[in-house]
Amino acid sequence: MGSENESVKLWGGRFSGSTDPVMEKFNASLPFDKIMWKQDIQGSIAYAKALSRANLLTEDECNTIIEGLETVRNEWAQEIFETQPQDEDIHTANERRLKELVGEVGGKVHTGRSRNDQVAVDMKLWLREHLTEIGEHLTILARVLVGRADREKAVLMPGYTHLQRAQPIRWSHLLLSHAWPLVTDLERLQELYSRVNVCPLGSGALAGNPFHIDREQLAQDLGFRSITENSLQAVSDRDYVVEFLFWSSLVGSHLSRLAEDVILYSTREFGYIKLSDAYATGSSLMPQKKNPDSMELIRGKAGTLAGNLCGFLAVLKGLPSTYNKDLQEDKLKMFETASIMKGLLQVAAGAVETMEVDAAACQKGLTEEMLATDIAYYLVKKGMAFRTAHGKAGEVVKLAEELGCPFSKIPLSELVKVSSLFADDVSSVWNFEHSVEQYEAAGGTALSSINVQITKVTAFLDNFNVAGERTSVTSP
Amino acid sequence: MGSENESVKLWGGRFSGSTDPVMEKFNASLPFDKIMWKQDIQGSIAYAKALSRANLLTEDECNTIIEGLETVRNEWAQEIFETQPQDEDIHTANERRLKELVGEVGGKVHTGRSRNDQVAVDMKLWLREHLTEIGEHLTILARVLVGRADREKAVLMPGYTHLQRAQPIRWSHLLLSHAWPLVTDLERLQELYSRVNVCPLGSGALAGNPFHIDREQLAQDLGFRSITENSLQAVSDRDYVVEFLFWSSLVGSHLSRLAEDVILYSTREFGYIKLSDAYATGSSLMPQKKNPDSMELIRGKAGTLAGNLCGFLAVLKGLPSTYNKDLQEDKLKMFETASIMKGLLQVAAGAVETMEVDAAACQKGLTEEMLATDIAYYLVKKGMAFRTAHGKAGEVVKLAEELGCPFSKIPLSELVKVSSLFADDVSSVWNFEHSVEQYEAAGGTALSSINVQITKVTAFLDNFNVAGERTSVTSP
Amino acid sequence: MGSENESVKLWGGRFSGSTDPVMEKFNASLPFDKIMWKQDIQGSIAYAKALSRANLLTEDECNTIIEGLETVRNEWAQEIFETQPQDEDIHTANERRLKELVGEVGGKVHTGRSRNDQVAVDMKLWLREHLTEIGEHLTILARVLVGRADREKAVLMPGYTHLQRAQPIRWSHLLLSHAWPLVTDLERLQELYSRVNVCPLGSGALAGNPFHIDREQLAQDLGFRSITENSLQAVSDRDYVVEFLFWSSLVGSHLSRLAEDVILYSTREFGYIKLSDAYATGSSLMPQKKNPDSMELIRGKAGTLAGNLCGFLAVLKGLPSTYNKDLQEDKLKMFETASIMKGLLQVAAGAVETMEVDAAACQKGLTEEMLATDIAYYLVKKGMAFRTAHGKAGEVVKLAEELGCPFSKIPLSELVKVSSLFADDVSSVWNFEHSVEQYEAAGGTALSSINVQITKVTAFLDNFNVAGERTSVTSP
Amino acid sequence: MGSENESVKLWGGRFSGSTDPVMEKFNASLPFDKIMWKQDIQGSIAYAKALSRANLLTEDECNTIIEGLETVRNEWAQEIFETQPQDEDIHTANERRLKELVGEVGGKVHTGRSRNDQVAVDMKLWLREHLTEIGEHLTILARVLVGRADREKAVLMPGYTHLQRAQPIRWSHLLLSHAWPLVTDLERLQELYSRVNVCPLGSGALAGNPFHIDREQLAQDLGFRSITENSLQAVSDRDYVVEFLFWSSLVGSHLSRLAEDVILYSTREFGYIKLSDAYATGSSLMPQKKNPDSMELIRGKAGTLAGNLCGFLAVLKGLPSTYNKDLQEDKLKMFETASIMKGLLQVAAGAVETMEVDAAACQKGLTEEMLATDIAYYLVKKGMAFRTAHGKAGEVVKLAEELGCPFSKIPLSELVKVSSLFADDVSSVWNFEHSVEQYEAAGGTALSSINVQITKVTAFLDNFNVAGERTSVTSP
Repeated sequence: MGSENESVKLWGGRFSGSTDPVMEKFNASLPFDKIMWKQDIQGSIAYAKALSRANLLTEDECNTIIEGLETVRNEWAQEIFETQPQDEDIHTANERRLKELVGEVGGKVHTGRSRNDQVAVDMKLWLREHLTEIGEHLTILARVLVGRADREKAVLMPGYTHLQRAQPIRWSHLLLSHAWPLVTDLERLQELYSRVNVCPLGSGALAGNPFHIDREQLAQDLGFRSITENSLQAVSDRDYVVEFLFWSSLVGSHLSRLAEDVILYSTREFGYIKLSDAYATGSSLMPQKKNPDSMELIRGKAGTLAGNLCGFLAVLKGLPSTYNKDLQEDKLKMFETASIMKGLLQVAAGAVETMEVDAAACQKGLTEEMLATDIAYYLVKKGMAFRTAHGKAGEVVKLAEELGCPFSKIPLSELVKVSSLFADDVSSVWNFEHSVEQYEAAGGTALSSINVQITKVTAFLDNFNVAGERTSVTSP
Repeated sequence: MGSENESVKLWGGRFSGSTDPVMEKFNASLPFDKIMWKQDIQGSIAYAKALSRANLLTEDECNTIIEGLETVRNEWAQEIFETQPQDEDIHTANERRLKELVGEVGGKVHTGRSRNDQVAVDMKLWLREHLTEIGEHLTILARVLVGRADREKAVLMPGYTHLQRAQPIRWSHLLLSHAWPLVTDLERLQELYSRVNVCPLGSGALAGNPFHIDREQLAQDLGFRSITENSLQAVSDRDYVVEFLFWSSLVGSHLSRLAEDVILYSTREFGYIKLSDAYATGSSLMPQKKNPDSMELIRGKAGTLAGNLCGFLAVLKGLPSTYNKDLQEDKLKMFETASIMKGLLQVAAGAVETMEVDAAACQKGLTEEMLATDIAYYLVKKGMAFRTAHGKAGEVVKLAEELGCPFSKIPLSELVKVSSLFADDVSSVWNFEHSVEQYEAAGGTALSSINVQITKVTAFLDNFNVAGERTSVTSP
Repeated sequence: MGSENESVKLWGGRFSGSTDPVMEKFNASLPFDKIMWKQDIQGSIAYAKALSRANLLTEDECNTIIEGLETVRNEWAQEIFETQPQDEDIHTANERRLKELVGEVGGKVHTGRSRNDQVAVDMKLWLREHLTEIGEHLTILARVLVGRADREKAVLMPGYTHLQRAQPIRWSHLLLSHAWPLVTDLERLQELYSRVNVCPLGSGALAGNPFHIDREQLAQDLGFRSITENSLQAVSDRDYVVEFLFWSSLVGSHLSRLAEDVILYSTREFGYIKLSDAYATGSSLMPQKKNPDSMELIRGKAGTLAGNLCGFLAVLKGLPSTYNKDLQEDKLKMFETASIMKGLLQVAAGAVETMEVDAAACQKGLTEEMLATDIAYYLVKKGMAFRTAHGKAGEVVKLAEELGCPFSKIPLSELVKVSSLFADDVSSVWNFEHSVEQYEAAGGTALSSINVQITKVTAFLDNFNVAGERTSVTSP
Repeated sequence: MGSENESVKLWGGRFSGSTDPVMEKFNASLPFDKIMWKQDIQGSIAYAKALSRANLLTEDECNTIIEGLETVRNEWAQEIFETQPQDEDIHTANERRLKELVGEVGGKVHTGRSRNDQVAVDMKLWLREHLTEIGEHLTILARVLVGRADREKAVLMPGYTHLQRAQPIRWSHLLLSHAWPLVTDLERLQELYSRVNVCPLGSGALAGNPFHIDREQLAQDLGFRSITENSLQAVSDRDYVVEFLFWSSLVGSHLSRLAEDVILYSTREFGYIKLSDAYATGSSLMPQKKNPDSMELIRGKAGTLAGNLCGFLAVLKGLPSTYNKDLQEDKLKMFETASIMKGLLQVAAGAVETMEVDAAACQKGLTEEMLATDIAYYLVKKGMAFRTAHGKAGEVVKLAEELGCPFSKIPLSELVKVSSLFADDVSSVWNFEHSVEQYEAAGGTALSSINVQITKVTAFLDNFNVAGERTSVTSP
């Protein structure tokens, strides 16, 4: 192969000896996994204690290591930690620095440990913290929705299906319809948290730990509720990342629905909502514009979140057991997704809290054709079979079109031709407040149901604890 | 617009008057949603009773309707139900037939109900049944894995990371590593089941039910644990579909890992596993071939499952509140995914149960370089810092390469040059059984840990009930 | 392993001897790949001729085989072909039947061929036909859009960005904005077609064909433009499927944008468009409703199409070279996607052709704040820097709000206070026709530009040939 | 709403007056779009000239602006550009700085332009450059593959289907099977480039440009081949981003197949390939390990690339016409994907160039059962129908198993019992070189075919020009 030199040149002459700077950069995770500096040190301190309990470290060695690690932690906290070119990831960076500080004894902290179980515990510690924070932001958004629902119960507005005016509803019912999915998201967050909160440390590279480490105690020291049960599984398990990406996608889908409603209702044509200036922006060209950028960004992020999930599922597909380097994709997705979620939830809460609802515009949106179902109901209550009544109501709709007047202006004499069941009391039907108050069955748009909903959601939020036992507002 | 006729012809002349057969076909869901015929009737019977309790139906009317619905059900069961061209979906088909059978009173069963809440309850009833069945198949697969693990504990084999030989493990440990994710999948299934098991019926089209329906009683009659709390949310909620698609994707990813291992271990090169003929196929061209088709199909389906999830998340993205026809995509995805899951799990169970492990080939795969870590551990146990010992073990690896012999053949005199800590007792290191038995810490590959795992998983499976309270093997 | 019988029972007792009916069903592709019966026979006839040319078949044998295959084809065409339980796929079904008809000589047609190259050629023949058909439907939709654009040039309407009223535009400009992406889609379709149109037959299982088959002639007989160049690649290549799924996703995204516009403009609030009854449906509960189901289905399918793509990319990810059974997922995706595309395009064409635009409502949507940019332009034309003019226009917007009047009612005396450049001729600005006619630069909304666009798109469509040389309307 | 203050506090008290720092951060694109500083200035300079030609700027003004922009460019180039908190994106940052440098006249450069057309042209200029660069890296990788194929034609190895040994092939044939998809990727890149290379500038916010800008000249100045034809479409079009993401996903899928092959062949069990140290890494725990990290990273990135595509398709799904802020997701995906592609391709080229193939191990992998097809071919050549011959070959496979010997050791007397066509000349079949040399038909694994492939791919690569006319190696 005499032409090797030549062909080497071909791809850039960049390769010489045993390193390729492009490969090193492609391989290095320090630029992004350094975000876990705190958790990496937390894990190492707990592991040093476990080694000490197993007599792999003397008490002195253990103290030396812990003090060294605390120094490293301070350097990170004060932003004076200096990374070196050979630091491949946060684990090697911290261990390298530890050894600079305390000497060879620093090399004992990795006894029986592998980066495979080390990175898994770092990630779980990191995610646990961020799930707590995300849960708080989500709770705030739910409170904002319920708070508005409580204050603005008097506002009636058109309810839509297929984006066509359907039946009158209370504005508060709509707000609550966006709060309920968040309640269930919080339930799911507890479940997810519970699965994240299981300690993989002590699984080694794949076969386990050979030094009689007390994994239960180690897990307890790190605040985990239990330990992983199979070392092979523990080092390849990224289900907590996948679940987090999914959870975020689902929340994203809920927020995208909220955003779509707000965008529509903020148009000149609907006009029910006015976003505050802080959550809308102007145009570089058109001076009159006020664009709902906050909501559009939220809606867009719902797509990105789904893509992160989907991409990571594709990464996992077809991998064999235990650790494979492909898993490194997990961190980029996890960090990005956590950051997006925090932004999304805070922006949504701010925008919803500060937007104004235009009650008059909502009222104006209520047009009498939305009472067509109520005509059918009126007839049903007088004994007609629903399907027949639905047909009769359809005839009334056509009648109104022919007469060019709203329902309420159709003479009773004409209505009677459609059905002899129509009588004077039909006038009560031409009333939107009357319409919404019919829906008293649980979950309906009547005031009584709104009040029950507010009480239930509020109680749930008051009692919510991400690390607690699963609470379900909908449980018996 | 005199040229309208012309341009109409342009796109096929197919349109005339008020129908377009392509649109009707595109719109119709009966071809696939008829799979829910049983659930649709079940829901209608329960709803008829609810109407009766609310005095919207007399007892006689209610009985007539129920008898009619039972007749319809029998027609479906006996495969003599005749669909009509105008039957748009299973709901209109069943109602049309009911009215043929019992006359106008059949039109009363839809009182206060909409297809929006009707389809939601049908889907949940359907999914609830299938989750139960899927849970059973999953439990069987887990039992098959644990059963083999219990019978074949004596088999040692190479453990891999990055597909490179890493450390010796027990075959049973590998089998259990595939069982544990399924255990967690079963936990997740309970959670999912619990969320599916909430009744939306009584939400109407969007605003609720105006006839004082007792939704709690209705839910109870249908075996639901509780009711949805907001009618707007209830008619647009497809989170149970998304969650099911996700759950299936995650199980798919676990099965894809199992399949990848089996495919690799079934190659001539690895040779650890021999699939039974029932789960392998021959070649139309090459007479000697035996291909692991079952496992490849499983691996492939993992991709399809992820695509179904991802596609449905894209469907939901950006939809406004309440029902929009886009949601019709839900059923195709839900039905297909349930069918895939049942196939996947049964095939996986059959293939794993009937495959043979070649213990001799596994043993042959154990090569001494896999004991390099044990050399380091040997030195650590004699007091050397791990990092230093890791380096010394590396030197031994190089030494063996230079001498062209396995570790066990290196003279002690040579080893001593690497570290004075080496002594006669190093001979105990050259033993694979000794190696695996080191990993006695919880979750390791030692026999004691295997036994604990088997006991735990078995107990979990014995107690598992998809509709029960959440059980967690990993809970304290 | 004495307990084997027991554990076999465990997973259902279904397995006995060498077959598992679940596995057989899971493995079988005949239920869906029989759709390619015609192409499979077409490929076999051509291959028989190639074998004959290579002296592997005598002329008599060749004729016997071809006559046999034609009989099989007729059986399929007349829907009297009887599949047998052992027919795993369309290839084995056709060959089995051929041998029943012509005896052992039928076994010669598979000489040097494998199902690996056979299925690849079948799929390409199938896809080629369907691409042609899909291209025709797409062309019709584009013609419908351009046809309307040509007829309705006089209609002015609000143009939106961020769904906020921005600047007046012509309705035709909007219609054309939906036609242009389809033009580019047709360009892409030619490219895709060109890559599909390459013959893999003669690649064998993986290593090639050992019988001096003339692959160029074989390809020509089947109407392919060329042959695949590497047999290993040819049997694993599914890029044409991936590309087709992507192409469809992209078209789906274009149609989803069209659908979203139509849905919005069909709302009571916008009111610009009225869908014909054939493409809208009523409500089972609300008699007054008319829902844009056709458009919602189209929008929803855009999600499903993306999911199909994404799922198949996940299927391919991580596969090793050549044929693996995972690839069987290709057909389900390809068939489903082709079927969706044909439905989508026809429904879209019908709906767009038959919908009505309400010119008066469009006109009413034009409000004077949309002329704010024109105020800035007025000042720019008088020499003011744009950014300054943009600020001045903003002041006029505020002035109008303060005075509670439209721009055109602001006294010149007030305008002059904002900028001394305002003069009598500002009155020309308060005119929507004047506004749109400003945009005469290429691609703008002025009439002249509309006319150019119509001419260009029409010429492109007139010349389009999916199998032709790539044509680009935008090429110099 | 007296409780407003309270509820505002609820979500963090962060909101006051008209700004929300979280929203500002969520909204700002400068942190990532500043990567396009050069293109933004390039676009503005060209636009200033266009304004000058249209007499919107005097020559002096134009020169002042251009000089100012060049100063801004130098500041970026020298990394001394200072961003300000109010700089929302690269466009406002550059314009703000320009005005600081040249005063109010700087405000004229945005005349008739909107950020909507500005960002579109910036992105296309950016992408065009990066496509060129990516094309070069891809070409190098293809050359590396072909170069090896040319040098190592003598190496025979097992060819696999379903990862089971199938037929003997040349190593070069495998290398070429990975080069061919890249050739087609380059063809696709030309097509993509051609669509990117169309200028949107002059489309304004949505309605077009009102100042008689000569868009053709402007496009020419910026090196574009043509202009967009509809302003509404131009400002919402992100098809070039979607296409780029797809193109990258498809290349990713090709590289993932290459990576999977290399990972498998680098295992101890296959042993055909040895990666150079620069592209493999060690273990923190196991001293003997050498892990194919480079290939695993490549395989993993294939998943991430698919996720980016899929996520962005979800972002686009359901958006209405023209610009919506959701589109801001485009840049993150485009920048990240370009960066991944450059890394992927360089690492793949380096790894493939420097890895070693172990010809002896490859030879050892060739076992006689892989000649089973050749037995069938032997009989076919003697006149037996293929299907019968396939069955006979199967009998020989069983015979060899029974006799416990390779095919070549089966006595002819035994073979004759299977078929009387077996004769002395069967000995020629037991030869791997003979086997591969059978496949002389185009695209096969015989030497002659390899040579043709090398010539064709090399010629294609030599002639390739990303901005050139579409070249197709497979065209007639």
